[in-house]
Amino acid sequence: MSGSSFGTLFKISTFGESHGSGIGVVIDGCPAGLTISQNDIQQELDRRRPGQSSIVTQRKESDTVKILSGIWNNQTLGTPIALIIMNEDHISADYDQIKGTFRPSHGDFTWQTKFGLRDYRGGGRSSARETAARVAAGAIASKLIAHYGIEILSFVQQVSSISVPEYFSGFSKEDIEKNIIRCPDPETAEKMIAFIEKIRDEGDTIGGIVKTIIRNCPVGLGEPVFDKLHADLGKAMLSINACKGFEIGSGFQSIQLKGSQHNDEFYQDGDHVKTKTNHSGGIQGGISNGMDIVFSSVFKPVATIMQTQTTIDLEGQSVELKAKGRHDPCVLPRAVPIVDAMAALVMADHLLRTRSNKL
Amino acid sequence: MSGSSFGTLFKISTFGESHGSGIGVVIDGCPAGLTISQNDIQQELDRRRPGQSSIVTQRKESDTVKILSGIWNNQTLGTPIALIIMNEDHISADYDQIKGTFRPSHGDFTWQTKFGLRDYRGGGRSSARETAARVAAGAIASKLIAHYGIEILSFVQQVSSISVPEYFSGFSKEDIEKNIIRCPDPETAEKMIAFIEKIRDEGDTIGGIVKTIIRNCPVGLGEPVFDKLHADLGKAMLSINACKGFEIGSGFQSIQLKGSQHNDEFYQDGDHVKTKTNHSGGIQGGISNGMDIVFSSVFKPVATIMQTQTTIDLEGQSVELKAKGRHDPCVLPRAVPIVDAMAALVMADHLLRTRSNKL
Amino acid sequence: MSGSSFGTLFKISTFGESHGSGIGVVIDGCPAGLTISQNDIQQELDRRRPGQSSIVTQRKESDTVKILSGIWNNQTLGTPIALIIMNEDHISADYDQIKGTFRPSHGDFTWQTKFGLRDYRGGGRSSARETAARVAAGAIASKLIAHYGIEILSFVQQVSSISVPEYFSGFSKEDIEKNIIRCPDPETAEKMIAFIEKIRDEGDTIGGIVKTIIRNCPVGLGEPVFDKLHADLGKAMLSINACKGFEIGSGFQSIQLKGSQHNDEFYQDGDHVKTKTNHSGGIQGGISNGMDIVFSSVFKPVATIMQTQTTIDLEGQSVELKAKGRHDPCVLPRAVPIVDAMAALVMADHLLRTRSNKL
Amino acid sequence: MSGSSFGTLFKISTFGESHGSGIGVVIDGCPAGLTISQNDIQQELDRRRPGQSSIVTQRKESDTVKILSGIWNNQTLGTPIALIIMNEDHISADYDQIKGTFRPSHGDFTWQTKFGLRDYRGGGRSSARETAARVAAGAIASKLIAHYGIEILSFVQQVSSISVPEYFSGFSKEDIEKNIIRCPDPETAEKMIAFIEKIRDEGDTIGGIVKTIIRNCPVGLGEPVFDKLHADLGKAMLSINACKGFEIGSGFQSIQLKGSQHNDEFYQDGDHVKTKTNHSGGIQGGISNGMDIVFSSVFKPVATIMQTQTTIDLEGQSVELKAKGRHDPCVLPRAVPIVDAMAALVMADHLLRTRSNKL
Repeated sequence: MSGSSFGTLFKISTFGESHGSGIGVVIDGCPAGLTISQNDIQQELDRRRPGQSSIVTQRKESDTVKILSGIWNNQTLGTPIALIIMNEDHISADYDQIKGTFRPSHGDFTWQTKFGLRDYRGGGRSSARETAARVAAGAIASKLIAHYGIEILSFVQQVSSISVPEYFSGFSKEDIEKNIIRCPDPETAEKMIAFIEKIRDEGDTIGGIVKTIIRNCPVGLGEPVFDKLHADLGKAMLSINACKGFEIGSGFQSIQLKGSQHNDEFYQDGDHVKTKTNHSGGIQGGISNGMDIVFSSVFKPVATIMQTQTTIDLEGQSVELKAKGRHDPCVLPRAVPIVDAMAALVMADHLLRTRSNKL
Repeated sequence: MSGSSFGTLFKISTFGESHGSGIGVVIDGCPAGLTISQNDIQQELDRRRPGQSSIVTQRKESDTVKILSGIWNNQTLGTPIALIIMNEDHISADYDQIKGTFRPSHGDFTWQTKFGLRDYRGGGRSSARETAARVAAGAIASKLIAHYGIEILSFVQQVSSISVPEYFSGFSKEDIEKNIIRCPDPETAEKMIAFIEKIRDEGDTIGGIVKTIIRNCPVGLGEPVFDKLHADLGKAMLSINACKGFEIGSGFQSIQLKGSQHNDEFYQDGDHVKTKTNHSGGIQGGISNGMDIVFSSVFKPVATIMQTQTTIDLEGQSVELKAKGRHDPCVLPRAVPIVDAMAALVMADHLLRTRSNKL
Repeated sequence: MSGSSFGTLFKISTFGESHGSGIGVVIDGCPAGLTISQNDIQQELDRRRPGQSSIVTQRKESDTVKILSGIWNNQTLGTPIALIIMNEDHISADYDQIKGTFRPSHGDFTWQTKFGLRDYRGGGRSSARETAARVAAGAIASKLIAHYGIEILSFVQQVSSISVPEYFSGFSKEDIEKNIIRCPDPETAEKMIAFIEKIRDEGDTIGGIVKTIIRNCPVGLGEPVFDKLHADLGKAMLSINACKGFEIGSGFQSIQLKGSQHNDEFYQDGDHVKTKTNHSGGIQGGISNGMDIVFSSVFKPVATIMQTQTTIDLEGQSVELKAKGRHDPCVLPRAVPIVDAMAALVMADHLLRTRSNKL
Repeated sequence: MSGSSFGTLFKISTFGESHGSGIGVVIDGCPAGLTISQNDIQQELDRRRPGQSSIVTQRKESDTVKILSGIWNNQTLGTPIALIIMNEDHISADYDQIKGTFRPSHGDFTWQTKFGLRDYRGGGRSSARETAARVAAGAIASKLIAHYGIEILSFVQQVSSISVPEYFSGFSKEDIEKNIIRCPDPETAEKMIAFIEKIRDEGDTIGGIVKTIIRNCPVGLGEPVFDKLHADLGKAMLSINACKGFEIGSGFQSIQLKGSQHNDEFYQDGDHVKTKTNHSGGIQGGISNGMDIVFSSVFKPVATIMQTQTTIDLEGQSVELKAKGRHDPCVLPRAVPIVDAMAALVMADHLLRTRSNKL
C-alpha cells in the first residue's frame, strides 16, 4: 500500500501525479441518501485553487471536478464516489531542471531513492497538487457531518510573528472568507498580507499557523487507545505537505501550567455538561466532550524560493539551483481549505465509527 | 473496532482494563527468526514501572510479562506473539469515589457517555496502565529495527520551563538512564528533579516535553500522501495519554525563519547524501532522508492532583473531589519508555512496508 | 500481518501454538452493553472439545476459557475482549517424529519452508487447535446476532456417501445436539456413526459436508462487489482446517438447471417479500434477501491416519511414517461448532457494517 | 466501507455504475519499476468485452481503458494507478421497466432495501459491468506475478453436463483462446457452443464451471489461519457475480476417498519437493506447496432470461416481466478473464505479503 488511503469507515483513496493525466479520489463508505451537487465540491476546490489572489501562486488551474460515480440526481447511492480533476496548464519546461537535481527540503531525493524512479514533472505525486483530491473528498465529508450539525472553521491564526490576538473570537465562516489571507480579524489580516507581499517581493517564503475550531460536535466521537480523536486529527494534519506540528487544546503551552490550573472543571449548564475552561480542546480520554474542538497546525515556509540555492544532482555533484515557475510565497491561505477538508474527513469517519459500535 | 489496534504490517492489538484480570497485547506481523527473550521485554517494562523512583507514583506493580505464543526457544515463529501482564495490587477502594463522579480532565465523562457504562476502577481502559502493553510490544519492535541498525533515543527535554540547552548533544542511551528523570544532561536533570519534588509536595502536577532522536534510519521509510513517516509518528505520540502536541524537526519554530533560512541544502559526504542543516527533522516529503529523525512530544500536567476540585456527579450535581491513592506528580520520566515504544512500533511497521513495496 | 485477524468491524485476532503456553483471541469491536457470561463461551467450547464421544479424538483437554478483559459484571464494556485457554495434556513425545519429517497433506512442509522454522509440537499454529479460539470468539458473536434475532444452525449433512434426505427439514438446534455426529435426522445419524466407527477401526479417516442454515436474517446484510455476504461466508469456511469447498444455495447443482428453472420468483407474503424457491440461498447481489441463508462446506478426510505412509524428511530423504497419538477419524462432528462460530463472526461483522453505512 | 476494495498490500478500489459516467479502479501498492502499457490492460478487457462472439451478449461496448496516474513512460511509479473506462452505448429505455420492478434472482430488491434508493439503469453498481474494473486491475497484477514466473490459466471446464474429460491436460493459454467458449479441448468446446446456441434460441440461459490452474507458484504463499491462500481465492471467486461455489483441489469429491487414499505423499524430485497426487490442489495448511494450484468456480445460469416471469413491483403487487435488451445466454466465456483477474489479484497480494514478512 502506497499510503494513499485515509480513513476506516469513511475511507478515501487518492491518486494522481501533478503533471499526469489527472488527479482524483474514490470515497468508499459514504452513506446513501445524502444530498450533494457538483457545485458543493467545486466551491471548496475554488478555495484551494491557485491564482485566486496576489499572495498565492499565479499558476492558472481551473481544477474543475467531475463526478464519475456514486452520486445520481444529486444523491449519494451508498456506492463509491469517484471524483476526477483533469490536469491542464503544464509548463513542463519549468521543471526540466529538477529532473536531474534534488531541490532542498523537497521530496525529490527521498522519492528518487525510495522508488528508484520518479515523475519529476511538477513534483509528481509529492506535489501539493494532490491536496486538491483531499479537498474534493473533504467537501463530501463536510456535507455528511453538516447533516449532523457539526461545523468546522479553520483560519490563519499566525504568519511569522503576526498573530490574531487571544481575545478575538465569535466569528463566522463568512468572516474568514472576507480577505485573501483567510484571517477573520481584519486588522491582523492586513498586517499578514503586507508581510507576505514583502516576503514575496524578496523571492522568499514564510510559514504560519492554521487554527481550527469544530463547533457542535456531539459527546462520544473518538475511540479508545490508538484512535483517539485528536490523534487521528493530528495524523491528518501532519500528512499535509509542509505541516510540521500539531497541538490540541493547550498544546505546547500546557507545560506552563500546573495540574491545578490546567484541569477543566465540569459543571452542568441546563441539559449540557460543560467545562469552565477548555484546555482539553474539546477532547478528553481521546473522546469528544461536547465543548469546541480546538487545534493548531503549523506550516513551514514553502521550500521553493526565488533565490539561488546550493544542492546536488543525481550523481552527487554540487550544483546551483534557482526555481522557475510560479510559486506560493506563503502556503497559509490555501492551507485553510485543506485543513478544513482533512478535519471533515476525520470527523466523518469517527461519526460512522461511533455509530457502528452501539447495540 | 474499538481503536485498540495499531500498525499496518507490524500490527498490534492491545487489551485490558486497569483493574481487570490482566492487560496484554497480540503482535501480528513480526517476521520469523528474530531472537528475543522474556527479559528483553521485561527490561523495557521495568523502565515504565510505577514505584521506580521518588518522583513517580509509589504504587507497587511488578508488571511481569508472560509470553503466551509466537516465541519459542527465544525465536519468533512468524505467528502472533501474545504477551500478558496479570494485574495485582488493587486498592479498589481508592477508586470508589470515581464510580459516581467525573474527574476533571480525565476520560470518565466521555467514556461513560460514549459507552453507557464503564469499568471505573482505576480508570478502566482509559487508564494509562494500558501503555504497559504498548511498551511490551515496543520491546519487540525495537529488536526488529535494531536488527537493521536503527536506534531510538527519547529523553526528557523540558519540564515546565526547565529545558536542556540547545548545544547539548552527543549522548547515549546509557546517559539517559543515569538519572531518575531520564534527562541526559546531569545539570538540567537535577533542576528538573528538584522542581518535580516541590510540585509533588504541593499536591500538584506538572508537564513537559519528551524529545526523540532516531539514529541510523535508512533513506526511504515512510509512504506518500497520508502515511508520511512523521504523520504516523505524530499519531503514535498523540495517542499516548496526556500527550497534547507533536512537532517534527523545526516544528512550531519553523515560522520564525524564511524559506531561504529554513531550507536544508544537500551535500555529498562520501557515500552519503546529507543536509547542512536538519530543519526537516530527517524526513522530507514524508520519507526518511538518512539524517537523524528528530521530534518532540508534549505532555500536559497529570490530571489527578492531591487538591480539592469541583466537578459533577452522574446526575449533574456539583460535588467536591480530592484524589486518593498514589499518583505521578509528573508523567515525563515514565513517558520516555512509552515514547520509545511507540516510535519503535512506527519504525518497525514502516520498515516492513517499505520492503513490501519493491519488485 | 500473519493472517490471524478476521473481520472488519467485529474484528478478532487469534494467537497460540498447539503446545505452547496457551491460545486465545482478542475481539475488537463488540458493542458495549451486551450480556455475556463465561458459561456462554464455555458451552460452545465444550461442543468443540476433544474426547466428547467415541467417534472423535480421545485426547483429554478441558479447554477452560478465561475472560481477561472487556467484560465486567457479565456485560461487555465496548473495549477489547481477551479470552485465553491455557494449554495442558501435552504428550509431546508423540510428536517427536514430526520434528524431522513432513506429514503428508499437513502444513509441515509449507510452514517450514515459509518461515524457516516451526514449532512442530502438535502442529504448532497450523494445528486445528487454533479453532478453539474461533469458537470462543464466535460465542460472543452469536450473542450479538441473537440480540437481533438471527439464529445459526449447522449440522452434518453428509459423511462419505451417507447423507440426510432432501425432504428432511423443520428441526431445531436441540435436534442437532441429540446425537454424537450432530445430524438432526436420527436415522441418518445412526448410519454415519456406524460408518465412522468402521473407518476408525481401520485406522483410516473420512470426510463429509456440514450444512448451515441462518434463520431470521434481516434484508440488507452484505456489501457490494467484493464483500458480498456469501463471499465472506465462503472465505470464513475455507479458512477452517480441512475445508476444501463451499457453496451457497444451489451451488454446484445450479448448472443442472436453466435460468428459467433456477430463478427465484418474488411474491409478497403479508409484510414480507419472499421468493417461491430459494436457489439463491438467501443472498442476492451479495446481500441477504430475508429468506433462509443456506450454504454447505465440505471437509476432506483427516490427514493423520493410523497407517504407514511414505514421505520425506528435512533433507529430502524418503522415510516411512505412522502416526502416534489420538486423532479424529472424522472431523465432522467437531467441525459443526466451528462452522457455527465462523458464520456468527461473519454475520456479526456484517450486522455492524450495515448499520455503520446509514444516514 | 461499501465493500468495493480488495486486497491487503496489492489493494484495489473499484467504482462506477453501469450507466453512470464511467467505471474504474485505483490500484494502491503496485511496486515501482514494473513495465506495463495501456495495451497490456486493453488486451485483457477485450477478452471480457460484450459482443465478442455469437454466444455472448450483443451489446456494443468498446471498453477502452485510460491510465490516469501511476504509470509513466510505461513504468509503474510506485504510486496509485488509476484506470478509467468511460461508459457508452446506453439504451436506458431498455431498463425503464426495472425502475419499478424487482427482477428475479437479481440484486434489485436487496439493493433497494439496503440503500433506500438505487441507480436502476442497467443494474447500477450491482451490474456485472463492474467486473471490467477487476479485469483492468487484474491485468496489472498479472504483470507483477509474471515478473516472478507465475502463470494463471482459467478455462471453461463444464457447461451444464458437458465437461472436459479428466484425462485432458497439457494445454497452453493460447489453446484456451482458440475458440469462443474458452475451452482448450476443441471437441468439448464444439459441444458446449452448440448447447449454448440452443439455449440462447430458447430465450433461456445456462451455467457451468470455470477451472483454474496456477503454474509455477513458489512454495510459501498464503498466510496462517484466516488468510489461507485458498480462502482468499475462494472469496475472490465467490465475489464475482453469479458465482455460487468454489472448491480447491479434490473439493467436494474429497468425501469419496478415505484419508489413506486422499493424502498426497511427498517425494524429492531433484531440487524440488513434490507430491505423488495433488488432491491438496497445490495448497497445504493454507500455504502453496509448489505443485500446481487447482480450483474450480461454479457459475449459475444468468438471471436475465428472454421469457416471461412473475415478480413484484415496489409496492409488492404481482407483475409480469420479460427482459428487453441484449444479454448473455451463458456467462462462462466472459467469466474466464474475470476469474483470471481475480486469481492474479490474490496471487499478487500474497506475493507481496510473503515478502513483507521476512527478516
